[in-house]
Amino acid sequence: MWKRAGGLLERNVSRSWVAPCRSVRMNSTEKEKVVILGTGWSSFRMVQSLSDKYKIVVVSPRNHFLFTPLLPSTTTGTLEFRSIVEPIRTSKIMDHVTYYQAHCTSFEPEKNLIHCESEYTGTFEVDYDKLVVGVGARNNTFGIEGVEENAHFLKELQDARSIRAHLLQNFEKAIIPTISKHERSRILSCVIVGGGPTGVEYAAELCDFLWNDLPRAYPQINAHEVKVTLLEAGPNILSAFDASMVKKALTSLRKRGVDIRTDSAVSKVNPESLELDSGYKIPYGTLVWSTGVGPHEVVSKSPFKTERGRIVTDEYLKVLGTENVFAFGDCASPESGLLPATAQVALQQGKYLARSLNRMQQNKELQEFKYHFLGNMAYIGGNKSLLESEYVNLSGWVSWIAWRAAYFTRLGSWVNKIQVPFDWTKTLIFGRDVTIF
Amino acid sequence: MWKRAGGLLERNVSRSWVAPCRSVRMNSTEKEKVVILGTGWSSFRMVQSLSDKYKIVVVSPRNHFLFTPLLPSTTTGTLEFRSIVEPIRTSKIMDHVTYYQAHCTSFEPEKNLIHCESEYTGTFEVDYDKLVVGVGARNNTFGIEGVEENAHFLKELQDARSIRAHLLQNFEKAIIPTISKHERSRILSCVIVGGGPTGVEYAAELCDFLWNDLPRAYPQINAHEVKVTLLEAGPNILSAFDASMVKKALTSLRKRGVDIRTDSAVSKVNPESLELDSGYKIPYGTLVWSTGVGPHEVVSKSPFKTERGRIVTDEYLKVLGTENVFAFGDCASPESGLLPATAQVALQQGKYLARSLNRMQQNKELQEFKYHFLGNMAYIGGNKSLLESEYVNLSGWVSWIAWRAAYFTRLGSWVNKIQVPFDWTKTLIFGRDVTIF
Repeated sequence: MWKRAGGLLERNVSRSWVAPCRSVRMNSTEKEKVVILGTGWSSFRMVQSLSDKYKIVVVSPRNHFLFTPLLPSTTTGTLEFRSIVEPIRTSKIMDHVTYYQAHCTSFEPEKNLIHCESEYTGTFEVDYDKLVVGVGARNNTFGIEGVEENAHFLKELQDARSIRAHLLQNFEKAIIPTISKHERSRILSCVIVGGGPTGVEYAAELCDFLWNDLPRAYPQINAHEVKVTLLEAGPNILSAFDASMVKKALTSLRKRGVDIRTDSAVSKVNPESLELDSGYKIPYGTLVWSTGVGPHEVVSKSPFKTERGRIVTDEYLKVLGTENVFAFGDCASPESGLLPATAQVALQQGKYLARSLNRMQQNKELQEFKYHFLGNMAYIGGNKSLLESEYVNLSGWVSWIAWRAAYFTRLGSWVNKIQVPFDWTKTLIFGRDVTIF
Repeated sequence: MWKRAGGLLERNVSRSWVAPCRSVRMNSTEKEKVVILGTGWSSFRMVQSLSDKYKIVVVSPRNHFLFTPLLPSTTTGTLEFRSIVEPIRTSKIMDHVTYYQAHCTSFEPEKNLIHCESEYTGTFEVDYDKLVVGVGARNNTFGIEGVEENAHFLKELQDARSIRAHLLQNFEKAIIPTISKHERSRILSCVIVGGGPTGVEYAAELCDFLWNDLPRAYPQINAHEVKVTLLEAGPNILSAFDASMVKKALTSLRKRGVDIRTDSAVSKVNPESLELDSGYKIPYGTLVWSTGVGPHEVVSKSPFKTERGRIVTDEYLKVLGTENVFAFGDCASPESGLLPATAQVALQQGKYLARSLNRMQQNKELQEFKYHFLGNMAYIGGNKSLLESEYVNLSGWVSWIAWRAAYFTRLGSWVNKIQVPFDWTKTLIFGRDVTIF
C-alpha cells in the first residue's frame, strides 16, 4: 500500500535526496520508445500494463486520469472532485514513464515524429518507435449555433465544477428580493440536452439535490419551482438500454419532476433560451450539453484514414496504412465496425494493446482485439439504478447498490477507494456542500 | 448531531414538503430587524449567538464562513478547500436568519438603509433597525504598481485554489523538454511578500510540499531548484511574536531553504519579476502577496468616521455619531486604540456584540468590550509550530500538535471536524494530490 501511492516509505527515501535518475537511466538504454497520447481510459490502462522494457512517454493535456462514470455525481457534491481522479504523476506507473503535459498538434508518421504544444512553453517535438493515439473525442455540438458559448459540457472535472458553482449561484440569484417573477422562473430552469447515460445521470443527481438538499439550503425555493427539462433528439433516452429498462427510467425521472422530451432537436442556443426544431423556445438558467462525442481536431486533420471522425484501425488496433501507429478509445474505430464510445471499450482496448505490445517484445504471435460487452449501468436518481448485462437486468435499490459496488471496485487508487465511500457517507449524513467559490 | 447539520432527520421532514414559511413568519411579526454585513469571524460568530427575538438579515458576497487560519494549508493540498468552510445556508443558524448573497455598496444611516448589489441581479435596498458592519478588509497593495495584476493574494478560498493550480502548472512547464535553463529557473522561483503569519505559513506549507511531495510527483525537479524567497518590508518577520520565537522560525525556515530577506520593500511588480526599493530585481514564477489588510472600499466612502481606513467605534462597538450602527472585525477600530486585525479579536467582538444586543432586548445594562489576548500561533513547516501565550511559549513538534488540536477544537461544524483530521491523515499516508483542473 505504501509503495503503491508513494506514502511514508517513499517519503523517507525522498528526504535523503536520491538524485532524480529516472530520465538518465532511460536515456542510456536502447529501449524501444512508445509514445502514448492521452490519459483517458484506454491510455491510462495501457500504461499500467505496458512492460518497462519499453521506454514509455505519455503526452496529454490532462495530468490525471478521470473516473468518468462518477463525474455526474460531482456536479452536485455527492462526491468531491478530487475523489474520482488519479494524478498520473503520483500513480505507481510513473516509475517507468515520462509524462509531458501538452497537446499533440500534428503527426508526421513518415518521420516517426509528433508535434506537441504546451499551453505556456510553446511547441516541441517528440519522436517515437511506436505511437499510440488515445486522444479521445470532443463534445459534439453538431455545429449548432450558441452551444460553445452558452452551454456547460460535462466531460472534464472543470466542467463539473463550473456546473456546480453555476447552479448554486442561480439559487442565490433567485432569492434576491428584487428579482422579477419572470427572471426567477428562467433562472430556476435547468435544461439538459442529450438523453444518454451522462445526461440522464446528471438529471438524476440534480433531482437528488433538489429533493434532499434544496429544502434545507434554500427553503425559499420550492423544488417544484426548479424546472428540469431533458431534451433528446432521438425517439428514446438511454438508447443502449432495453425498452423495459428505459420505461423504468422514464417513470422514475418523471415522478421526480423531470420533463423528458424526446424527438426534440435543438436548433439554436441563445444566452438565456434555446430553440427547438419545432420553433418552441425554452428559457434556461443552466444548460448542460451532453450529446455524445465528436471528432477531436487533431484526428480530423491527421494524415490517417478516418471514418465518422475516428481513426480507422485493423483488428490489432493498428492504424491502416501504418506499421507502428496504433489508435484506440473514442478517437478510433476498427474497420470491422464502430464500437461505442464508452469506458468499457476503451478499458479493454488499453489492456489489449499493452498485452499486444508486450507480446511483440517477446516475438509472440498477436491475437485480434475482441470486445466483450459487460453490461450497461445508469443511475436514475433516488437511490435507484439500471443495470443491464448478458445474464440479468436489474433496476431499483438493489441495482443501485450493485452500481455503487461495481464502480467502487473499479476505482484505481487506494486514495479513491477510501475517499469515495467517505464522500458517499458524508453526503448521506450531512447533505451536500453548498459553498460557492 | 443530526439536528445541527441538517442530516437524516431534517431530510425526512423535507421530503414531506413543509412549505417554506420562514420569511412569512418573519414578515408577520414586529421583531426588531438587525442587518449584519459579512460572513467572517465576527459576523458569523455574532449570528450564532444573537437571539431569535431579532429578525436577522445577513448580507455578504461570500456564502460561507472560512476558517482562515487553515487557509495556507489548502494551497498545497494538506487540507482540501471545502474542509475548512461552513456554508451559511446549511448552518444551524439559518433557522432564524435571512441571507442575501450581495455586496453592501453604500450606507444611508439617516434613513436606516443600506444599498446592496448582487453581481448578477442589480441593486436593491435593505432597511434596518440596527446595522452591524463586519465587511472585513481588503488585501493591502500599498498602491504598488503591478500587484493587483500579477500577484496571488491569500485571503479567500479561490485565492488558495488559484495558487495551488498555478504552482503545479509551473512544475509541469518546468519539465517540458524545450524550456530554457533561464526560464526554468524563473518558473521555479516562488516569492512571498509579507512576513506575517499568513506569509510564513504559506512558505512553511510550500516547503512541506517541496520536501515531501515534489520528489515523488516531479522527480525531474530537485527541491533545491525551487527557490523560495520571503520578503518583509519591516525589520523582522512575525512581528507579533517574541524575538526568541522569531529566531526559531528563521532558523527552521532557512534550514529548509527559504531565503528570508527583511527590510526589503517591493517597489514594483512586473509580470515575471519584481523590483525592490534597493533596485534589486527578483524573477518569479509564483508571487504570493500577503502584506496584511487595507481599507474596504465601502468603508472608505462611508459616512462614518474612519481612522486608518477603519470605522471608529466606542467601547460598546457602536459607530461614533450613530445610535444604531455597530462595527467590528477588520473594518473597525475602537477609539481607545487599534486592535490587531486577527481572527481572535473578531471572534471575541462577534460574541460580545451578540450578547450586547441580547441584553438590549432585555433592557439590561451593557458592558464595555474588553479584548483578551489568548496567544499567537504560527505553523513554520516540518511539523513544527510556534505557540505563544500569556503563560507559556512553545515551539517544535509538541507545539505543532497543540496548533492542530487548537484549530481542530475551534472548527465550527461536525463536517469540518470529521473532514479536517481525515485530510491530515490522508496527506500523511498518501501525500498531497497534484491533479490540475
